[in-house]
Amino acid sequence: MASYSPLPEPQAIAHPGLTPGVSIPLSPRGGTDSRLPGARSGRIGDYVEAIPMRSRVSRWMQIFHDTTTHFFEDRDGGGRFEEDAWLRPGGGGGISRVLTDGVTFEKVGVNRSVVDGEIPGEMAARLGSDRISGGQVRFFATGVSVVCHPRSPMLPIVHMNVRYFEIEGKDGTPLDYWFGGGMDLTPTHPFPEDAVHFHRALRETCLRHHPDYYDRFKAWCDRYFVNSHRDDEMRGIGGIFFDNLRGGPDGTLDAESAFAFSQDVGLALRSAYGPIVERRRNMSFGTREKELQLIRRGRYVEFNLVHDRGTRFGLQTNARIESVLMSLPPMARWGYNLSYEPGTFEHRLMEMLKPRDWVDGVPPEFTSPVR
Amino acid sequence: MASYSPLPEPQAIAHPGLTPGVSIPLSPRGGTDSRLPGARSGRIGDYVEAIPMRSRVSRWMQIFHDTTTHFFEDRDGGGRFEEDAWLRPGGGGGISRVLTDGVTFEKVGVNRSVVDGEIPGEMAARLGSDRISGGQVRFFATGVSVVCHPRSPMLPIVHMNVRYFEIEGKDGTPLDYWFGGGMDLTPTHPFPEDAVHFHRALRETCLRHHPDYYDRFKAWCDRYFVNSHRDDEMRGIGGIFFDNLRGGPDGTLDAESAFAFSQDVGLALRSAYGPIVERRRNMSFGTREKELQLIRRGRYVEFNLVHDRGTRFGLQTNARIESVLMSLPPMARWGYNLSYEPGTFEHRLMEMLKPRDWVDGVPPEFTSPVR
Repeated sequence: MASYSPLPEPQAIAHPGLTPGVSIPLSPRGGTDSRLPGARSGRIGDYVEAIPMRSRVSRWMQIFHDTTTHFFEDRDGGGRFEEDAWLRPGGGGGISRVLTDGVTFEKVGVNRSVVDGEIPGEMAARLGSDRISGGQVRFFATGVSVVCHPRSPMLPIVHMNVRYFEIEGKDGTPLDYWFGGGMDLTPTHPFPEDAVHFHRALRETCLRHHPDYYDRFKAWCDRYFVNSHRDDEMRGIGGIFFDNLRGGPDGTLDAESAFAFSQDVGLALRSAYGPIVERRRNMSFGTREKELQLIRRGRYVEFNLVHDRGTRFGLQTNARIESVLMSLPPMARWGYNLSYEPGTFEHRLMEMLKPRDWVDGVPPEFTSPVR
Repeated sequence: MASYSPLPEPQAIAHPGLTPGVSIPLSPRGGTDSRLPGARSGRIGDYVEAIPMRSRVSRWMQIFHDTTTHFFEDRDGGGRFEEDAWLRPGGGGGISRVLTDGVTFEKVGVNRSVVDGEIPGEMAARLGSDRISGGQVRFFATGVSVVCHPRSPMLPIVHMNVRYFEIEGKDGTPLDYWFGGGMDLTPTHPFPEDAVHFHRALRETCLRHHPDYYDRFKAWCDRYFVNSHRDDEMRGIGGIFFDNLRGGPDGTLDAESAFAFSQDVGLALRSAYGPIVERRRNMSFGTREKELQLIRRGRYVEFNLVHDRGTRFGLQTNARIESVLMSLPPMARWGYNLSYEPGTFEHRLMEMLKPRDWVDGVPPEFTSPVR
């Protein structure tokens, strides 16, 4: 990794209980945060109990941000990230890292943000919190998001995101918190076996935490990344998407297990995407393959600007625009009335985008050669 | 022009009073439509009085659609339009014409639509009609819209649009109607003299109709084509934009003068844009000029997908998506954290985008050479 100037952490991270420089057990599974309602003391040592969840999550996000930056620099084989720090007028800020014109990747954005501020009660309710009794509350949010646009059309676009929200009353009493995130793949050339690999890796991650997570979060992803204005065409071949995850069965609060799952989703970037990069990076391609990539990137732009909740939220709330739109591809193309003949690779890609079960292996309709 | 298969007009055009094949006086200024409240009979002959405004507007739109198609094919010097007709499930339809990969233009879309149907009263009110007494009403709308993306970065993108709305009660009584439209220019290379020419042509057009129109509609345009998520960066150097135009002084109904103005705005495409095409089409350019064009096209995409009311309305109402998104450029680019040094042509272009008075001539700050 290139060396980055040391940046002061946004104030929101500095929280009583977190001593800078002291290492923290990152995933003490089975414990709960003593500050939170329903905390059961005595299950883990006093040390972890004393550290508020927001501090532990923030610290993990910081480390995950760095390791993810390393991951893409290593895989790129030459490109370096530029770093920008920004402050949000209402509270907090973020650190954006962008790799442009790399060897393998045309653009990779790895964003981290830590923000807090006041929110009106109605908005808190809309955000998914059912523990708001009305009146002014404060929120805290931190997350890491990643979008990678490879240079070669044979490599798929990957997007991943982990985020943590907390809502507290004016007096600092925690009212609610939840985790969200996910990872999804947007191939620009049809390799059904890559879709199988990606989904199997995600299912493995999910199974370590809950028998239902993969099915639930895979279905959620298929409902979310939809260009409804294009006859429900999907952005990619899906993955997993989750939100409002409070961790316990039946939606009860269990911070530790939700946190552990979110961390594991972050780590799955390596196992789910890494092997695909290695397998496809040296494949040759021609102008027809490149053209299809640019057209699919155009649909990616459409989804992000028209539908994506995070992007639209950023556009409406004066977030740092270069960070919000980091997800857009370096170059994209729009055709008119494009349609593809059955038997072509373009047509197969479109068929692959229809939501389906990938974990059982390559579906038989995808085994015949394409031209 | 390429020969187009004769298309049946959408049903909404077939209206009592319009005999197919009978030629109609297109701009009988000073008259009023006898169907409309406030019509003063006896000012023009019975012939025109008997033809409802919607039929005359529809007929003019059809002819204007054809002449505009001709205009771009002539200017292109080789490219031909493809034509698609579509029907709207709720009523009416449209005819889209797209020229792709021409000699001068990379993509030109010339769309016409004629639609009608039922709308709830609240929506009618939101559309701008203040004559709705509540309850179910019907609407009728027809319009022509044009977006032209030239191949060379030295040629600006032009957008123009004329549209007509009518609202009537269940029993067919006309309740309200209005015209809207405009034309604006998005240069991708800084030629201040082109901005002066464009605005002077539009002012001339406006002055033929009302002494206040240019100033009012120029200011409206500057308020509309704004990428508010980019610190209020403008899409281009503006032009004119108008809506809810009922024609009479103080907003009273005067269909004829509003119709005459709308037709003149349509015709101004020739005088405002034509000479710029001739002047710039053979200029040479390099990769830096092309790069700037692609970046500015990216901002064009952002405006259209995030802010443009027509596009967002189309995305939400199951309009034919290829026609709605015809305005998107064939290719666009996104950079990260771009900034331009004073003295460069890129910087000058950004300075030109700031709203200003162009009709007095090139501002002194734009007369020094750029590198």
